[in-house]
Amino acid sequence: MTATVPVIPFVAREVTPEWLAALRTALPEARIVPFAETTAAERAAARVAVVANPEPAELAELPALEWVQSLWAGVERIVAELPESLKVVRLVDPQLALSMAEAVLAWTLYLHRDMPHYAAAQARVEWSPRPMRLAQERPIAILGLGHLGRAAARALLAQDFPVMGWTRTPTEMEGVETFHGPEGLAEILSRAEIAVSLLPLTPETRGLLGAEALDKLPKGAGLINFGRGPVVDVAALAERLSDGRLGHAVLDVFAVEPLPADDPLWRHPSVTVLPHISAPTHKASAAAIAAGNVRHYFETGEIPALVDRTRGY
Amino acid sequence: MTATVPVIPFVAREVTPEWLAALRTALPEARIVPFAETTAAERAAARVAVVANPEPAELAELPALEWVQSLWAGVERIVAELPESLKVVRLVDPQLALSMAEAVLAWTLYLHRDMPHYAAAQARVEWSPRPMRLAQERPIAILGLGHLGRAAARALLAQDFPVMGWTRTPTEMEGVETFHGPEGLAEILSRAEIAVSLLPLTPETRGLLGAEALDKLPKGAGLINFGRGPVVDVAALAERLSDGRLGHAVLDVFAVEPLPADDPLWRHPSVTVLPHISAPTHKASAAAIAAGNVRHYFETGEIPALVDRTRGY
Repeated sequence: MTATVPVIPFVAREVTPEWLAALRTALPEARIVPFAETTAAERAAARVAVVANPEPAELAELPALEWVQSLWAGVERIVAELPESLKVVRLVDPQLALSMAEAVLAWTLYLHRDMPHYAAAQARVEWSPRPMRLAQERPIAILGLGHLGRAAARALLAQDFPVMGWTRTPTEMEGVETFHGPEGLAEILSRAEIAVSLLPLTPETRGLLGAEALDKLPKGAGLINFGRGPVVDVAALAERLSDGRLGHAVLDVFAVEPLPADDPLWRHPSVTVLPHISAPTHKASAAAIAAGNVRHYFETGEIPALVDRTRGY
Repeated sequence: MTATVPVIPFVAREVTPEWLAALRTALPEARIVPFAETTAAERAAARVAVVANPEPAELAELPALEWVQSLWAGVERIVAELPESLKVVRLVDPQLALSMAEAVLAWTLYLHRDMPHYAAAQARVEWSPRPMRLAQERPIAILGLGHLGRAAARALLAQDFPVMGWTRTPTEMEGVETFHGPEGLAEILSRAEIAVSLLPLTPETRGLLGAEALDKLPKGAGLINFGRGPVVDVAALAERLSDGRLGHAVLDVFAVEPLPADDPLWRHPSVTVLPHISAPTHKASAAAIAAGNVRHYFETGEIPALVDRTRGY
């Protein structure tokens, strides 16, 4: 090893060969080394680490660490577990936003075109056409209008859905009616036939979609949660799906993942359970972005935009 | 009744109040009368009729008939059953094309995002994420590139799918690689991960997607039939789905509809059966277009573009 080849510890609870290969391809001028394989000297010298669901105890063994590049977009666990002094850069990947937009469009169309009804009808061997609604008559609410939410809004607008958006603080987007704050949430939910949560998990969003918020939705409305599980009170949700106040829910994220086998959500006829697949990280694309951030830091000393630890995202 | 209010017989095997109301709203200056309620004098005078799956024997009782306005886009039954001398105008409704494009996008995303796999996994209480493919890596073939096919192609292009199109005779469309004729069919199928049939039923297309054509598709490919049932040889299709040569089929149209309860397609784990709902006629929109054609005829004597009885559509 020469002094010109920096060692970047890769700190992850699960180090996969695919991630290692993608990172090494994207950053050939450095040596990406899984934490467990680093030497004491390498750990002492490391100024930046690439992380994916890291063990805090491992990061604590890197005394010279200035910042970490997360390979995940969601960083609430890092924010909760790591010391406040650690600088965290989360993954902002345009491909991730496109994948999320595609997922929002796909499962919005799934609800809009009554796919759960047709699957149930087929299981009963029942020819049961339902009247079709036009997209322009079906308003969709996107909760969380960051770069994922905006990409999702664009995909829905292209298919003629009326799109509304909700954010914590006021924001604007062309073609989208925007709402903010607690009163805005009540208002947007009362007008949404399908509500899509892309909200990050923060102290303010935990349980935000509970009984009170869900009761604002019109009768028969659908809910899609592609953000974080604990934002939705699933007990309150299941109750409203069972008695028909709400129509169908598509849940991709849960408080505990994988969703335990004895969780009643698995067997609820009005719940579609997905195994956290709405917007999987595209490894090559994510590795290239992480590599670009690290390279820029070694060349200029500049650390990319950080997670705001007070907002939590 | 005054001489200035023409009577338009409405000839349909099933006259619904919804259709009557929509037609009467769209053409208030005429009297739309179900065939069974027409007088002998009205039948003798009728020069145009609005039809939906009409009884040929009833149309034969309208001796002065010059043309019929069908409320359906598919007219193969009329073409097969009615005298060649009768002029047939089929419904060309922009809303119908948008609904079909939406359906093609919705069920393409259904296959692209592995929804049949996730539904089966949920039924088994199995957390089973699959690697995600990018839309730009998934070429789609649209068979039939008329106004429905072109609208579908535009919707898929907007979501970054590479789109190919096949037609009987050469055609072009921006952003779409086009193929035609029998060799073109073999070529396009060999490159399609999802093939979407929007083909009309004609002597040439009956059974076109049989064993030989289906064997051109890559292993694991998906098939969507939103055109006409008899275009696909469902026995050959089911065999290839059962042994894994093909992945999954979405069938919305069948040789006999409703699909009989004892048809094995209902219970095939790799077949999604839909009850002919891909692009239902939007009554208000269709009635307005039919009314426009009839009104134009009474004002000018011109009959709109006819079905080409030799092509069959």
